[in-house]
Amino acid sequence: MKLNEIGEFGFIDRFTPWFSDLIKDHQVGIGDDCAIISANDTEDWLITTDLLMEDVHFIRTALTPWQLGYKSLAVNLSDIASMGGSPIGSFLSIGIPEDIDVEYLDAFMKGYHELSAKYQVPLLGGDTTKSIKYLAINVCIIGKCKKGEAKKRDMAQSGDVICVTGDLGNSAAGLKLLLEKQTLSAEYNFLLEKHHLPEPRIDEGRFLASFPDAHAMMDISDGIASDLFHILKASGKTAVVEVDKLPLSNELITIADKKHWDPIELAATGGEDYELLLTVAAEKFSMIESCYSERFGRPLSPIGHIHEGEPHIQWLKEGVEYELSKSGFNHFTN
Amino acid sequence: MKLNEIGEFGFIDRFTPWFSDLIKDHQVGIGDDCAIISANDTEDWLITTDLLMEDVHFIRTALTPWQLGYKSLAVNLSDIASMGGSPIGSFLSIGIPEDIDVEYLDAFMKGYHELSAKYQVPLLGGDTTKSIKYLAINVCIIGKCKKGEAKKRDMAQSGDVICVTGDLGNSAAGLKLLLEKQTLSAEYNFLLEKHHLPEPRIDEGRFLASFPDAHAMMDISDGIASDLFHILKASGKTAVVEVDKLPLSNELITIADKKHWDPIELAATGGEDYELLLTVAAEKFSMIESCYSERFGRPLSPIGHIHEGEPHIQWLKEGVEYELSKSGFNHFTN
Repeated sequence: MKLNEIGEFGFIDRFTPWFSDLIKDHQVGIGDDCAIISANDTEDWLITTDLLMEDVHFIRTALTPWQLGYKSLAVNLSDIASMGGSPIGSFLSIGIPEDIDVEYLDAFMKGYHELSAKYQVPLLGGDTTKSIKYLAINVCIIGKCKKGEAKKRDMAQSGDVICVTGDLGNSAAGLKLLLEKQTLSAEYNFLLEKHHLPEPRIDEGRFLASFPDAHAMMDISDGIASDLFHILKASGKTAVVEVDKLPLSNELITIADKKHWDPIELAATGGEDYELLLTVAAEKFSMIESCYSERFGRPLSPIGHIHEGEPHIQWLKEGVEYELSKSGFNHFTN
Repeated sequence: MKLNEIGEFGFIDRFTPWFSDLIKDHQVGIGDDCAIISANDTEDWLITTDLLMEDVHFIRTALTPWQLGYKSLAVNLSDIASMGGSPIGSFLSIGIPEDIDVEYLDAFMKGYHELSAKYQVPLLGGDTTKSIKYLAINVCIIGKCKKGEAKKRDMAQSGDVICVTGDLGNSAAGLKLLLEKQTLSAEYNFLLEKHHLPEPRIDEGRFLASFPDAHAMMDISDGIASDLFHILKASGKTAVVEVDKLPLSNELITIADKKHWDPIELAATGGEDYELLLTVAAEKFSMIESCYSERFGRPLSPIGHIHEGEPHIQWLKEGVEYELSKSGFNHFTN
């Protein structure tokens, strides 16, 4: 059987039950952005790992090695952020093909170091090895949070407001520009930078995790159509999302207009925004939103609601049911 | 500059200092088999990661997917063993090319599960993604040990006996047989199995770590010529190794004789035995060896001594200086 017949999650579902007997009471394993292990009386530790493969996750000529080093760490820090954690240390494995030279690697490590220094995350180990052809990068991060405060995907409650920490679709627009393989004018730098240098929402995640009325949380890596569905599946809930409320940057609106792209499609199904997607008790949303915008100078954008029901997203545009053309990114089936 | 001009360790030495300011007092980073992070008042946690790339670390047609799954976990568990730790959980990232089907992956995960169950290590997370051509496997393991009891490479003391937990060179002989690409008779199964299905010395590592007079320890992944040199460099010591004392299996001696291979060369420079290499206070060696052989029914083999001096291994054969033809495996320069 071909893997694309069952997809990434179908494969994971096959072997996950084999390991369930081995998981201890104080551990949470496969199925969230990070695993959780109780470390001591006051802290849980969070562990996440991501493998980035050349020509699957990145095209070597489409970004600088500095950007690639930065982004390799950023996407993993985002997983720690998504559960409200603080990073403790990172581990970098890198499989290096022969045509990559030391100068490329130095620049890669400088980009990786830049973000490490920003969030004070030491590189504590890893593995350096040869690869026959394609560059392979695996990052693993250990983080921590207050005991029991990790925000998980299965915590959404009926009536919750669904909200996001920032504009959606910018990274997908940046990727579309890159894939056009035309000379890119400086006016597109904002969108390209959103694609190449995502900001992990570490501070935002920790801040939001401190509110017990913030319930489920995850980061937006595959697009909200796919990511919100994970929350719904884990929580056993359904959702209504108003596409008019998806926060869009002026840059996205401008280019979508110019290129005849659908900005809603990009915002709902485009991946790699690495903003946080969370659900908040409706009666506390206004208070938490005020605190958040006071603290970060940016709004927490409400985009819909959680309801009782089968895992499904109903999309509304101006109050009328709306259909998306695809439902987020899947490596094996896209 | 090409990477093979500076090698894996030359590359690591370039960027390690950039991160030194970020490392906290209770953390030990790059430079040992595992990183160490203080988790609570009684435990340190150990973290290790290894990236296995197709056609660099393994040839897909040369072993079954079950064996590959088993070995991917074994080589990482060996790093936990090498510091005297117990595994807590594993994380598996896998980059899958299109020609690998679900049946191959099921068998891989069954091999991975077999060893997970043996050592009661849950698979707690990971990443599943596409690879353009070559299979890429990254395993990260978290382990733990009693606070301050982790055995490090920099702990060798002058006068220590250097010893190993088992026969050397079997895995290298198994690899040589595979690389001959001839039909392999059943008489070679012992050596092939040593290559494909190494046993991580978890129980042995924990047992040895409980003796304060066992000093430096690591696992033998690149051959003792290379691995012992890491201990000497970290500890600022020199070593004398008597090649007549390297423990050799009858199977290795038989095949070396038949094929005109040098068994000493295989035992000293062949990698992937995944036995433990350690240094023990001379006056306590006999006691620790007795306890070890009583507990495990196998000897702890003394092969040489640690002395004051520049990091260097002097090899002796029947008391006379002896020269090896190579000094262990390096992916970028071999």
